[in-house]
Amino acid sequence: MSETFQFRLLASDGGARRGEITMPRGTIRTPAFMPVGTGGTVKAMYMDQVRELGADIILGNTYHLMLRPGAERVARLGGLHDFARWPYPILTDSGGFQVMSLAALRKLDERGVTFKSHIDGVKYDMTPERSIEIQGLLDSDIQMQLDECIRLPAERDDVERAMELSLRWADRCKAAFGDQPGKAMFGIVQGGDVPDLRVRSAQALAAMDLKGYAVGGLAVGEPQAVMLEMLEAVCPVLPAEKPRYLMGVGTPDDMLKSVARGIDMFDCVMPTRAGRHGLAYTRFGKINLRNARHADDPRPLDAESDCPAARDYSRAYLHHLVRSGEALGGMLLTWNNLAYYQRLMQGARDAIEAGRYGNYVAQTQAGWERGDLPAL
Amino acid sequence: MSETFQFRLLASDGGARRGEITMPRGTIRTPAFMPVGTGGTVKAMYMDQVRELGADIILGNTYHLMLRPGAERVARLGGLHDFARWPYPILTDSGGFQVMSLAALRKLDERGVTFKSHIDGVKYDMTPERSIEIQGLLDSDIQMQLDECIRLPAERDDVERAMELSLRWADRCKAAFGDQPGKAMFGIVQGGDVPDLRVRSAQALAAMDLKGYAVGGLAVGEPQAVMLEMLEAVCPVLPAEKPRYLMGVGTPDDMLKSVARGIDMFDCVMPTRAGRHGLAYTRFGKINLRNARHADDPRPLDAESDCPAARDYSRAYLHHLVRSGEALGGMLLTWNNLAYYQRLMQGARDAIEAGRYGNYVAQTQAGWERGDLPAL
Ligand SMILES: [Zn+2]
Ligand SMILES: [Zn+2]
Repeated sequence: MSETFQFRLLASDGGARRGEITMPRGTIRTPAFMPVGTGGTVKAMYMDQVRELGADIILGNTYHLMLRPGAERVARLGGLHDFARWPYPILTDSGGFQVMSLAALRKLDERGVTFKSHIDGVKYDMTPERSIEIQGLLDSDIQMQLDECIRLPAERDDVERAMELSLRWADRCKAAFGDQPGKAMFGIVQGGDVPDLRVRSAQALAAMDLKGYAVGGLAVGEPQAVMLEMLEAVCPVLPAEKPRYLMGVGTPDDMLKSVARGIDMFDCVMPTRAGRHGLAYTRFGKINLRNARHADDPRPLDAESDCPAARDYSRAYLHHLVRSGEALGGMLLTWNNLAYYQRLMQGARDAIEAGRYGNYVAQTQAGWERGDLPAL
Repeated sequence: MSETFQFRLLASDGGARRGEITMPRGTIRTPAFMPVGTGGTVKAMYMDQVRELGADIILGNTYHLMLRPGAERVARLGGLHDFARWPYPILTDSGGFQVMSLAALRKLDERGVTFKSHIDGVKYDMTPERSIEIQGLLDSDIQMQLDECIRLPAERDDVERAMELSLRWADRCKAAFGDQPGKAMFGIVQGGDVPDLRVRSAQALAAMDLKGYAVGGLAVGEPQAVMLEMLEAVCPVLPAEKPRYLMGVGTPDDMLKSVARGIDMFDCVMPTRAGRHGLAYTRFGKINLRNARHADDPRPLDAESDCPAARDYSRAYLHHLVRSGEALGGMLLTWNNLAYYQRLMQGARDAIEAGRYGNYVAQTQAGWERGDLPAL
């Protein structure tokens, strides 16, 4: 741990980086996957389990938390760490992405965005300054600038306008955040699927000397190749000595390929959401427990896993729980999925240190391609 | 543990009994509360937690399990204990009660009952022999006779007919169960709210020399006083050296008063169901976490509890989870509730041994009557 936010590069292998963020609430080993704790809970998990799986940091959603229970309330209760019983680092998004995707009656201008809550229709006003204020009330360790994330496909002019606005908001967020040595505020590279706009965004943010950089507005439906092309354009422009966070990504394959291109941090709802829908991420690929082939299968998801959810429960039982809509089905599959995501990242970290990252990716992908165990 | 099913009375205090069932899969300390694991899962709980709370036995529902995943399938998978990862004793009901309350197109005659599944409309045939066969396929340790449980209020003639039919079915179940020294088949006292019919039922069952006796058809909406009156009529007729199980009961108060009248075993969905609906059972009474008074309350449900769910999470957080419909809300409140039920029974067992059961009931009731902590 450290009194100040610091990032150290420990090793690299091609474009892949093995690093470490140290800050007062703990150390974050990178590449890192951050489980999503939208409303102050990683759905269907106890925080103790999330920690035991190896998570160094979780993500909280500013939009959800500002609506319910409310940022001022969380602050009165001692901050999000006490509230949710997670004493380790927390990263919060700015709220911008969910305002764009969930809220009603959005009105966006230079100043910020007004919108109505999707829960109760109450009107809110979000500016760069207010976003940082809310993240401060939550006592977030890594805060994100407010940005405008536009839907793709979009006209170049619109992409450019949103990217430029996001840069001006980054400036305002930096000023609002001020000097907080133990915490960090990250800028967000925008620019849609236009490489030269992405590069301009990254250059302008790099010049602001922020503590870290996110790449936003990807994994929103575009082909994986487009996402990787953007990373190839952006990462070389970002300063090597700062952490890089690819927002909202992704599948295990997305993450391995993004690490190869220089990304250090990820968050995604996939492992938690898929777990609630009967899907298991494993070294054999993605397994749908709802499928009838599992109904009589006494084998666990993965006998060699050290996660109890993967190792100790039969596929037949998991199938039964999923088909019956039992809460335990979502609990076990979410547990399995977060375990798999954390082990994937641990494997990546080990491989980068050993200089065999390409080999690790190839072996992992080969496992997915071989597919699930043959049916009994 | 024991190779054979045995019940020993260890102490008594007035009508209250402290006993112990020993059988191959474990020892059941009585008075005992059995968490309900309807479809092979105690909803929103890991079996390890259920065990840690002090449960010696859980209940499985024959009706649910025969429909899904199916009794023959559970048998092929090694029985319910392996399937659900609960290696300790399991009691199963006969399926009769749920057939009457959940299934469609019931047709009941001397032979048994036919019905259609509430899940997929498939037609099933249930006889006393088939119920015992299914419970055997599940490898249930304590099996229940098939009975007819009629809705109250009802005419005396109808109550009497159903009670007499249940006695004939008890005979057939006893024959079907045969000689299984490590397991038990319990008869079920019926007779509605008519004391003399209850007594006749209990006498006839006592004469069959079964290994244990249940009291069924109560806690179905009648006043508590009626339920207690039936127990006062029935318990003196039942053999003292056999365990007595009051089916589907009940509230903490129901259980304490029933123990005083000679009941040894209980099951009820209340702690689990209430937990999923934002209600917490505590020594301060029942607390509705949905209530706005908890929104800013940093205190736990009960700082003196040794259950983490009661001790470590703020009411404000629980309120937030419940209001947001988060799975963790149901997980934590179910955990709290089952912990409270188990501690209530542990308290009863200790008090009976110490000859201060009346005092224990009075103190516990006084705590409920004082009510919850004053609002902050
Ligand atoms: Zn995602
Ligand atoms: Zn009940």
